[in-house]
This record gives sequence, structure tokens and C-alpha cells, in this order.
Amino acid sequence: MPGRNFLFIPGPTNIPDRINRAMHLAQEDMRAPDLPNFTKPLYEDMKKVFKTTTGRVFIFPASGTGGWEAGIANTLSPGDKVLMSGFGHFSNLWIDMCQRWGLNVQALEVDWGEGVPVERYAEILKADRKHEIKGVFATQNETATGVASDVKAVRKALDDASHPALLFVDGVSSVASMDFRMDEWCVDVCVSGSQKGLMLPTGLGIICMSQKAMEAAKTAKLPRCFFDIADQIKSNDMGFFPYTPPMNLLRGLRESLNILFEEGLENVFARHHRYAEATRAAVKAWGLKLVAKEPKWYSDTISAVFVPEGFNGTEVVRTAYRRYNLCLSIGLAKVAGKIFRIGHLGDMNELMLLAALSGAEMAMRDIGIKVEAGSGVAAAQEYLRASAKPSVEEARKI
Amino acid sequence: MPGRNFLFIPGPTNIPDRINRAMHLAQEDMRAPDLPNFTKPLYEDMKKVFKTTTGRVFIFPASGTGGWEAGIANTLSPGDKVLMSGFGHFSNLWIDMCQRWGLNVQALEVDWGEGVPVERYAEILKADRKHEIKGVFATQNETATGVASDVKAVRKALDDASHPALLFVDGVSSVASMDFRMDEWCVDVCVSGSQKGLMLPTGLGIICMSQKAMEAAKTAKLPRCFFDIADQIKSNDMGFFPYTPPMNLLRGLRESLNILFEEGLENVFARHHRYAEATRAAVKAWGLKLVAKEPKWYSDTISAVFVPEGFNGTEVVRTAYRRYNLCLSIGLAKVAGKIFRIGHLGDMNELMLLAALSGAEMAMRDIGIKVEAGSGVAAAQEYLRASAKPSVEEARKI
Amino acid sequence: MPGRNFLFIPGPTNIPDRINRAMHLAQEDMRAPDLPNFTKPLYEDMKKVFKTTTGRVFIFPASGTGGWEAGIANTLSPGDKVLMSGFGHFSNLWIDMCQRWGLNVQALEVDWGEGVPVERYAEILKADRKHEIKGVFATQNETATGVASDVKAVRKALDDASHPALLFVDGVSSVASMDFRMDEWCVDVCVSGSQKGLMLPTGLGIICMSQKAMEAAKTAKLPRCFFDIADQIKSNDMGFFPYTPPMNLLRGLRESLNILFEEGLENVFARHHRYAEATRAAVKAWGLKLVAKEPKWYSDTISAVFVPEGFNGTEVVRTAYRRYNLCLSIGLAKVAGKIFRIGHLGDMNELMLLAALSGAEMAMRDIGIKVEAGSGVAAAQEYLRASAKPSVEEARKI
Amino acid sequence: MPGRNFLFIPGPTNIPDRINRAMHLAQEDMRAPDLPNFTKPLYEDMKKVFKTTTGRVFIFPASGTGGWEAGIANTLSPGDKVLMSGFGHFSNLWIDMCQRWGLNVQALEVDWGEGVPVERYAEILKADRKHEIKGVFATQNETATGVASDVKAVRKALDDASHPALLFVDGVSSVASMDFRMDEWCVDVCVSGSQKGLMLPTGLGIICMSQKAMEAAKTAKLPRCFFDIADQIKSNDMGFFPYTPPMNLLRGLRESLNILFEEGLENVFARHHRYAEATRAAVKAWGLKLVAKEPKWYSDTISAVFVPEGFNGTEVVRTAYRRYNLCLSIGLAKVAGKIFRIGHLGDMNELMLLAALSGAEMAMRDIGIKVEAGSGVAAAQEYLRASAKPSVEEARKI
Repeated sequence: MPGRNFLFIPGPTNIPDRINRAMHLAQEDMRAPDLPNFTKPLYEDMKKVFKTTTGRVFIFPASGTGGWEAGIANTLSPGDKVLMSGFGHFSNLWIDMCQRWGLNVQALEVDWGEGVPVERYAEILKADRKHEIKGVFATQNETATGVASDVKAVRKALDDASHPALLFVDGVSSVASMDFRMDEWCVDVCVSGSQKGLMLPTGLGIICMSQKAMEAAKTAKLPRCFFDIADQIKSNDMGFFPYTPPMNLLRGLRESLNILFEEGLENVFARHHRYAEATRAAVKAWGLKLVAKEPKWYSDTISAVFVPEGFNGTEVVRTAYRRYNLCLSIGLAKVAGKIFRIGHLGDMNELMLLAALSGAEMAMRDIGIKVEAGSGVAAAQEYLRASAKPSVEEARKI
Repeated sequence: MPGRNFLFIPGPTNIPDRINRAMHLAQEDMRAPDLPNFTKPLYEDMKKVFKTTTGRVFIFPASGTGGWEAGIANTLSPGDKVLMSGFGHFSNLWIDMCQRWGLNVQALEVDWGEGVPVERYAEILKADRKHEIKGVFATQNETATGVASDVKAVRKALDDASHPALLFVDGVSSVASMDFRMDEWCVDVCVSGSQKGLMLPTGLGIICMSQKAMEAAKTAKLPRCFFDIADQIKSNDMGFFPYTPPMNLLRGLRESLNILFEEGLENVFARHHRYAEATRAAVKAWGLKLVAKEPKWYSDTISAVFVPEGFNGTEVVRTAYRRYNLCLSIGLAKVAGKIFRIGHLGDMNELMLLAALSGAEMAMRDIGIKVEAGSGVAAAQEYLRASAKPSVEEARKI
Repeated sequence: MPGRNFLFIPGPTNIPDRINRAMHLAQEDMRAPDLPNFTKPLYEDMKKVFKTTTGRVFIFPASGTGGWEAGIANTLSPGDKVLMSGFGHFSNLWIDMCQRWGLNVQALEVDWGEGVPVERYAEILKADRKHEIKGVFATQNETATGVASDVKAVRKALDDASHPALLFVDGVSSVASMDFRMDEWCVDVCVSGSQKGLMLPTGLGIICMSQKAMEAAKTAKLPRCFFDIADQIKSNDMGFFPYTPPMNLLRGLRESLNILFEEGLENVFARHHRYAEATRAAVKAWGLKLVAKEPKWYSDTISAVFVPEGFNGTEVVRTAYRRYNLCLSIGLAKVAGKIFRIGHLGDMNELMLLAALSGAEMAMRDIGIKVEAGSGVAAAQEYLRASAKPSVEEARKI
Repeated sequence: MPGRNFLFIPGPTNIPDRINRAMHLAQEDMRAPDLPNFTKPLYEDMKKVFKTTTGRVFIFPASGTGGWEAGIANTLSPGDKVLMSGFGHFSNLWIDMCQRWGLNVQALEVDWGEGVPVERYAEILKADRKHEIKGVFATQNETATGVASDVKAVRKALDDASHPALLFVDGVSSVASMDFRMDEWCVDVCVSGSQKGLMLPTGLGIICMSQKAMEAAKTAKLPRCFFDIADQIKSNDMGFFPYTPPMNLLRGLRESLNILFEEGLENVFARHHRYAEATRAAVKAWGLKLVAKEPKWYSDTISAVFVPEGFNGTEVVRTAYRRYNLCLSIGLAKVAGKIFRIGHLGDMNELMLLAALSGAEMAMRDIGIKVEAGSGVAAAQEYLRASAKPSVEEARKI
């Protein structure tokens, strides 16, 4: 198939050539005496991604799901009560995992299209005078619906109730793409993975833990061995690992951080916001609706779009893939068939996004959805032109 | 700069990942006894690209310009009269080269926007009863103006005049993208390079010579050594080279041929035609004009577009590059500033092209050219949708 | 540092260029409808590596340690009695993991330099009339001491006692390098990883399970979620995954299997045996002793060598690394300082091995160990020459 | 074939991974307005490799042979008298090229095993009162025999005769591996290529010209177009190229220079000398003789070794290739069959060299040559140990 595939799923995301090159490597001795010269600054720099100076980062050869497990298994004990909310496929899977690990899960059901129900959380936390709730969970970005939640507000709910529960955040599809502030928001466990904002292949489950969470680990009784941070701490402190580390991905992670820091994290977030806005302009021009019910729920990394009644979102996705080499995402679970999703995160620029919007437009028209040819692209173009850097004037002078 | 550059110049063209991987190699011994197992089928397969069974292919570590030189130096003698025509920057450079090599060049000047003046060639050849003209030159695709010429008709002009001159074709930006038929059109010397339809980095000057041209080489008196086919023949016959060969590019060329043959040459040509048509639909929707004056001159690998009076085509190109990471080409020589060019050849697909058209559209609007946002993209989309494979029906069933 | 590092640790092993190229990839959609065309044959072919037709392979984004955990967690319940033996750092770590997961471990201590104590196993199993032992564990290759064990004999011990316990094999540093026969030896759970015989980067924990083990999984009560084979089965059956799979490594695994099958598994095993014999010839010529006490314990993937009294094996390793860019392995735990280890597995050939033996020789001489310069290399050369393919006669005729 | 090929030919040489990665690139626009930011420092830094501040470097998409041609064609006129000397296959080919380009070549025949006959040059130059000789040629390193010549002494011969002829040096297999001083030795044209000391794939013909040579170019009458420095100067001055440049190789060249400068040119030369000495120690231990007759002719990049009477050097090379995946070089022309050659230049370290010496030793023994197993390796080891960095003492402290 000639030409490049256009990958617009919410992860894995496009890998910059620099990262692919950085991982094209001879294998190396993970016990080489000079390895700490590489690993120690890497772990230190990872903290900047989470905006923490007091927390600690742990990296497992796993996926984001493994990261979820590591976060839970290290900090909680069988039967512990946790407060969670489900409003999409992935927040529901997290609930499911907690249940399978024997936690006592209070799971709030929320309409898909909304996010963490902060006010209900606040009430429940206030009512929990005995502090039976040990963990409060928030999915910062629900990939299945394109809904972002307000983590800072969850922290406020905890603080307002003077509640000591640990705050768990699923940042898999937000960290390094949307603003996340470990220290400022007093998050205790944030989970991420390599294949989203970090622009790497899948294979790293990454968690960041607060001092409070690490203290909790000392008494947490869920069984763990592969994911035990105690082993990590002992080895990582010396710049090494408790078992063979995924060196290729770690070398790639180094390049990923180089790239992120060169652009600047705030610029990265602004860029993601810009692409999300352009996508939303296109969706509006198409006359379609997002799953996210209100602007406050809008995600900057993925947009989930309802297809009109009588059409099948999965068919849009399949047509785009088979006819235009474009990967969009289908709807999962409750919204299967009703939506398609456009992931707009990672290593991306204006023309890549416009290509994807073109492809979505064409695929919709192909199956009979009445959107005007070029309409979404034009709307996105106009938004992007107005906000592109350098300005037209500056570009003239360069 | 995040995301991928969009490369829409008429060469170098986008390199497929498969080719980049094939060239990521340890170096090898160019005198290894089993090397002919690789080189002999490679040279044999290259003949298919030129559609020849009787001709012979020579590959030099050089560029297309080196290929031009190899073609001339091996077949002509100082003072030989040659018939040429200039209708763009590159056909003029070829004329210049022949003059610098001491040939007696009869160069017909042709309006830019037209191609080889076949009728004038026919008259001149008929008039040349003494067969003083030793070579007749045709640029199959003038990259500077996006003009294709009718090589078959040049052959007919020679045949009609029963003229024995050698027929030279510049196929640098056409071979492997547009139909070329060495044997059927009785071409004697066709010149190509690695960085266009063959989708490789720059570094190979490739010529295909007929038996008649190789016979001429025996008495041709232009000095040559690096480009001497006699040395090549002696070594190539045994599967080796007269001096160190560019093995990385040759390994890449193997993968290039694999890719071309998997798609099928005719499908490759049809694909290029389709992208050219889509581009022309966009240009029309923008209300702009091509440099190519009539459909018969339309190139399937590059479109040169006039900007409206009062605007500078180079500014479109610079704006596209600086604001949207899109590489278009500027106008050269006589049309500098008046045009911009969109190369649409090589490893390309629909969405890549639509991205480039989006970027061109935005850059034009940025500098004040009155084209409607999305108009060109919409026109191209509609053309591409109508001709995409698989059909919508088939895509449903896959 | 000029030139290549010589990597002679027991894993990660050298990555063939073909595999590195196969992993230098654009990311892809792990839900693409045609993905099963890739995944299904891959899983099927992995069974050949384990020599099973009735078992099933599971691949986790993890390390070999994660594979250990997956094997245990899916098949056993808290308090289950298991029979294990420790005779090196890694067999001891496996014991430790089982204890941490709450199993009732009967761990036999064995002299380092010997392997699984089959006769003691046989007695214990015969004595266990009530079949309280649920799992019997055998480390096929103890990486820390260079000791191989007889898995077939462990199976015989089980059979002779008509004992129904599951047979667990740690094949991390043996599978795809030394012969392993899942079906013939009726192994129930075999654990491997990507970074040894499979010549990939670290990042895949691979287990192969018998039907009996999968049946046991239905009632096994150890908690599991990330490593739960039930989720894998459901998704893998359709050619997909329960969570984001490490596609790069899976694409690399495909190439690894291509390479292994092209050479032929039996040839791969013979090659490893040959390098091991050459290494042992060198050790003998140096006048040194292996940790493995008898030929029946000799490992074909790693040799652990005692340094003479008064010298420090770790210093050999450090000197080799710092002066000659050679990675050997240090002694761990009980044999720290007393030995150095030479890993000779994976993508390797005669001259690579001779280079490593040269480096070991030089490093030993550097710190004052009295080995004769060139002695080990000469002994290895003579062994390798006698067994090299093609024969001298054949090489003449090629 | 498992494991890496050992490439010990005198070029192409081993490519460092860093360079291969640097060339694994998307194609780029060679007319991008910011390209000069890359090209200008590159050309400036290339001057450091030639140790010139007053000269100028030209880079052609070609091979070293193309570089030879560029050097001649730009500076000489038909019939010009040149003083040359032949003492191996490559110095003879240079003579042949000059003859084919119509120069009046006075070629001194020299015994193979010696180099440029400086005293005869001195006499001839003194005798040439009319300064009919326009060019004096010196092959700094004759690859076919492993003979280095004294360029500085040739300059002295010119100076002593107050002779104005241009001094041409073939530095293809010496530049960036052995000391070369353009300015200090007043060299006028030095020719090199990419695939030797620069550790790149074949594909760049590189020449460095003095101001005097560039002045000569203005009146030199040999025909040239592809290799014309006048076109290069015009474009290079602006940071661009007269025709499509081989950007991948230029990006690789950038990384090559980074690597060379990081190590330091003098350290690079010292390293090459060290490997050459170790090789010579091995040859002596084998009881064999070099083609180079005296130490003053010894090359630091390649050693040519006579096999004993009754044996065929080509058979050593073929056996090494077929049985041990080792590429040595055969004897060419006059010494075909009598010798084999070991290239020891480029990206190389101690163990790589010892591996090659092991392989040569084994191949010789295979065909019956009486060298003692391990003898050459031992001698080389001892030399290398004595001179390795860091010292044993330092290595202990790191």
C-alpha cells in the first residue's frame, strides 16, 4: 500500500523518527557499571513530566494496564473501600480491575459524555466520617468518550472533607499531552504508559507516586512481586533494576523527554489544545455532535463523534481504513456503532490533522452521511491558520 | 518541530519505510564471491522498469545530472550535431551541458508550458538528408513547468524521416512514475536517477542504453573514464563493479523494485495519474491556471501553478514551509515568483495529497490570494472518492 | 568509543540487524481488522519453538520475571504446596517469588554447580501419597552458575510416582537455544522471555501452558488481572489483545521466528552446543574450572568460570568492560567475586566468540591471573575449525 | 547466517550505528531556505579533516574514482605533462585515468612494496627547468600493497626544485585514518571518499583544493560539467548545490565528523597506528612477511601479507569468508594469489581486530599453511594490552 498510514487512534500514537532511531540499537548490559549515568537523570527528568519534585516515578516493562495494577497492588489491601466512577469503557475497566483484586468498590455510574462527578464525590467524602474510603479514583481523560475530568476539583473535594484517602489518577491518555500537576493537585498515584503522549511503542507501564502513597506501600497487603515498588526502589536507588529492564524503550524514553523538553511542556499542551479545537470546528461544520456533553468535558487528546441516526460509526472507521489508509477508532461497549473517534495526540502537526479530517469526511460521504465535502477541513483550516506560528508577518521575514 | 514534514517537491520523493530499513545495513564486501547473486537479478529487473529486453542498464554513483553526462559522453564525439529543445529550466540545463561538452547543439526554443515540438523536429529531421544530426533529445517530463512530452511521437518523426540519429530521453522525473517504453519507442539512451519514481535517496545516476547506443559507444570520442560504460560492462558482466559501488543504495534499489513490482508498474502509473488529476481538480477549484498550456502537456508527476498577478509564488512556498511544514517547489528561472509547484510522485497516497493541497490553500490565503478555504481539497476529495479502491461496496464486504 | 561492544552476558543477547530493522516501524492500530492475519500465525509459530501442538502460548508485555508471575498466578492457589530447588541466584529468586505469592514452598537446597536434584524430587513425589504437592519446579538453565538440568528426568520422576502435580519449567535462558520439548516431556508451564534465545529486546514475558495447566487456571485462586490468561484467551482467539499489545516487539518476534526457522531449531541448538564446547575448551586451556561440577550439568548458553584463589572475578569483568568494550557477567550472591560468566547464546558466530575469549584472556592477564596469552583462543579455534561448516573441502568448491 | 560479518577490507569500512541511524531519514527539500544552516558548517568542518584553513572542500555524489576525475578535470588541460608513480593496483589505475583523459603521463614504475620514489621525483623535478610538468602525483596509501608514502617529502622535492607543479594526493584510504596536512604540506588537490576513514557508505567523492589549484581551474581545459567546481562554488557559496545533492550521505557525514571530533583526529590516527602495529605483530608471529618492504612503507590502514610459496592467498580469503564470515581482501593484479590483505581502518576496536586475526589464522591453517594456532592473536593481544586505555590501574579506579 503506497504512502504512509494516518494513525489517528488515541494510542499508540505516531513515533517521531528521532525516537525510532534512538531505539535502533545494539543490546546493552543492564548491569554495566556506567548505566546509572543514564538511568538516574532519566528518572529525574520523568518527574518533570508529572510536575513533581516530591514524588517518585516507577517504570515497569508492562502496559498502562500493568501500571493500573502496580498502582493498586502497592498501596491498597484486600477489602479496602475505594470510590470510583464509570463513564466510559476504560474507567469501567479500571473499576473491574479493582473488583478483581478484591477491593470494595463504590462505583458511581455516570452518563457517558460526562466525567468524574466531583459533586457526588464531595458529598460521599464528607459523609465518610470514619474514613473508610482508602482510595479515590479519577480518570483524567476517558479515551472511549473523549471526556476530560477535573482532577484539581477532586483534590478540592478531598481537602474540603479533610479526607485522607489516596488520590489515584488514570493519566494514560493525558500525561505529556494535557496539563497534569502531581504536586500542586496532591495526587498520590498517577498511572501512565509509553504509547500515548510519550510517543513510544507500547511496553512501559509508568506510575508516579507521592510520598504518602509510598508510605502506604509499606503496609499495603495486596500481593505483588513483579510490580512491587520495594524491589524497584532498592535497585533504582543505585541506578539499576530488580530484573531485566526494557532498555530499548528506556533509550527511546530519553529521546522522548528530549523532544518534549525542547518543545516545552506548556507548548505541547497548547498544541494539543489547538488540534482539539480544530477538530471540534470540523465536527461542528459537519453538523455532528461530540459525545462530550459540554465544553468543560472536552478532551484535548481525543474527540468522539456521534454519527447521525441510521448510520454506523464502525462503518466510517472501516471505510476510512480500507479506502484511505486512515486509522480512526470505533466506539466501544455502550456506544459501539454510534460513534467514531479521532485521536489527536502525540507527534502531530496541522497537515496531518487536516489529512485525517479529509479522510473522515470522505469516509462519511462514502457511506451516505450528509456532510459537505471539504466543510470540516475548511473550518479546521481557518482555525489553524489563525493560530499558526510563526505569524504570516513573521514568516515573511524569516 | 512536531509531526512529519510533507514533501511535495518533484524529488527527492518520500522514502517508504521499507526502503529506509533495507538501507540500514552493515557495510559489505563489494568483492564477495556471492555478490553476483544479488547484482545480476537487480540489473535484470531494472530493465523491466525501462520496459526493455534488448537494452542494458548502467548504474553510476552519481545524480541524474551525472546520468545525463554518462549518456552523452559514451555515445557522442566532439562537434557532433544534436537536436534539442528548451522549454523549462531542466531541458535548458541539458542543452547547456551538451554545449559545455563541445557538441554542436541546435536548440529549439519553445514556449514554457509546451513540450518537445515534435512537428518542428520532424521537419528538421526530414531536411537533414546528410544525417548530420547524431542525436535527438527529448525531455519526457519537464520538472520546471509540469509539462510532459510525447516521446513516441519523436520516435515517429525519426522513423518518418528514416533518420539514424540516436534518441536521447531525459526520464529523470518520469521513469517509474509515468509510462516509458524503451523498446517499443526505440529509445537509445534514457537517463534516470534514484530520487524520484524509484523512491530512493539521491545518489544513483541510471541510464538505459539500446544496442545501437552501445555500438555507438565503441567509436564515440568524448573523453570519459568514471562514466565509461566499457569498464562497467566488463565488471557488470561478472556481477561486479569497476570501482566501489554504492551498495546501500543498490540494496535500497532492490527493495524499491520489490515495491514497484508488488504494486505493478501499470498500477503505479495509474496512481500517479489519479493524484495528478486530483491536483488539477483542486487547481481548477481555486480558479488558478497551470503552466502546462493544454491537457496534452499535463504531467502526472508535477503540477506547476500560476499565482494571480500581484502575488509571489515563492511566498506561497515559503509560507507553506515555515507555517505548515510543507515543502512545495518554487518557480525557477523565467517563471521565478510567478508560480509554485506541487510534486505528486513517488510513495504517496490520497490523504498525503489532500494534506498538501490543504497546506497550499492555507498558504495562499495567508498571503492574501483569494481562494476559498477547502475548495481545492473538496474538489480533489470528490475526484479521489470516485476512483478509490476498493469501492465502497467492496470495502463493506472485506 | 570506537567499534562495537561485545555483548557476552546471558541476556539481553545480540540483536540481529534483521530484527532491529523489523522493529523500526511506524506505530499501528492494534484494533485494525486485518491484524489477525499477523497475530494468528505468529502465535501458531511460537508453539513450534516450544515443540508443542497441544499447548498454548501467552505473550505479555513484561519481562521473564513477569512470565514467572503469570505462570504461577494463573495455575495455583494461596497455600498450595510446591516442590522447588535452589542452586543459583535465579532459581532462588523463583523460590522467593513463590513464597511472596503465599505458596507453601518446599525448597531443596542444592550445591551451586549442580542442578535440579532429580532423585530427591523422585523420593519426595513418591512419598507424597496424598498429592499435596500441586507444582514441581525445574530451572532448565540456571544462568547464575551455567548449569543445565534434566527436565525429562523430572517428568519421569513425576510419572514414576504417578503424581498429578503440574510441572513448571523456567526456560528463560534455554528456550530457542537449547532443546526444549513441551509435549514430549509433558511440561505444564514453561516460562520464557524475549531477550535471550529469541534475540529481541527485553519486554515480552512468554509462557506456554499445557491443556492441563489451562484447566487448572479455571479454579486457581491466586489473584490476577494484568496477567490473567482468561482475558488473553478471549481476545487472542479473535487475533486481538485484552489491552494494548507491544506491537514493535511482536513484529520483531515475527522476524525472530523467521530467522530461527530458516536456520532450523536443531541447527540452532547444535550451534549453541558448539560455542559452549569451544568456550569450555578455552577454560580448560586456561587451567581454570567451571562452576558446573560435571559435564551433565554443562550449560550450552552460559559458562561460569572460577577465577583462581586470590583474584576477583568481578575485576575481570570490569577490566574487560573498561579496557576492551567487552561485557561479561559478574558472579551474583553466593559466588560474587569468585567467578565471571561468559554468555554464549543468541545471534553469534565463531569470530564473535573468539573475540570474547580474547578479551577475557587479556582482562585476566591484566589483573595478574596466570593464563597464557592466546591459549584459550587457540584451543577454541581448534575445536571450532574441526566442526565448522562448510568443510574446508566444500568451501574450496563453492 | 548467524552473527555479524567481520569486515576487514580496506573499505567500505564498518559503519558506526550512530551514522546508520543518522542516515535513516525522511527525504528533505534540498532547496529549503534553512538548509545552509546545515551545509555551511559541514563544509567548514570538513576542512579540519584535511587540516586546511585556506583550501576548499568539494563533495560530489560519486565514488573516490569520481573524486580522482574531479581533481584532474578541474585543474589540467589536454596534453599536460604529469609525473606519477605506480606501485600497486590503485596507483596504476590513477595513471590509467590520467592517460585516458589525454594527459602526457610520465609514470615511474616502482617495485610493489615500496611507495612514491621521492628521490627520483626530486631528480626529475630538478631537471625539469622549463616546468613542463604541471602535476606531481602521490598516492599516500596504496591499498593494494599496504604501502604508505611520504607526502611531505614530495613537497620538499618540489620546493627544493622551486617547481610550480600542482601536488595531487590520493588520500582515499588515508584521510581521516592517517595524518594528512593539506596546508602544512602545501598539497593542491587531495582526493578522498566516504567509505574509508569517514565510515560512511560509498557515494561521496570528496576533494580538497588549494587556492592555487582553484586558480588553475580557471584556465584548465579538460572538459567537465558534472564535476565542475565552478558550478559547485556558485551554489555552495549560498549553502546549496548545483544539482540534487546526496542528502542522506551528507547527514551521515555530519555524524561522522561529530564522531571523529569527539575522539579527536590525533587519537584516531594513534588508534589506527596501534591496530596496524598489533596486526604486524601477528604477521611476525605467524612467520609471514608483509608486502611493504620496510617499516617506512608500513601502512596504518591496511596490511598486505604474503602467503608462503605453494599456497594461494585468495584461498585464505575465500575460506575465511565461507567458513568464518570474515571478509579479508585478495591480492590484485601482479600479486593476485600471492597475498591476502587485512584492512584495519575505520570504526574498529581491539576485539574486532583480534577476531579477524583469529579468523585469518584459522583460514590459513585450514588450507594447510603452517602457522601456530593462537600465535598471531597472542602477539597482538600482548601489544594491545600494553597500550590499551585506560591503564589497568585506572580501570580499577573508575
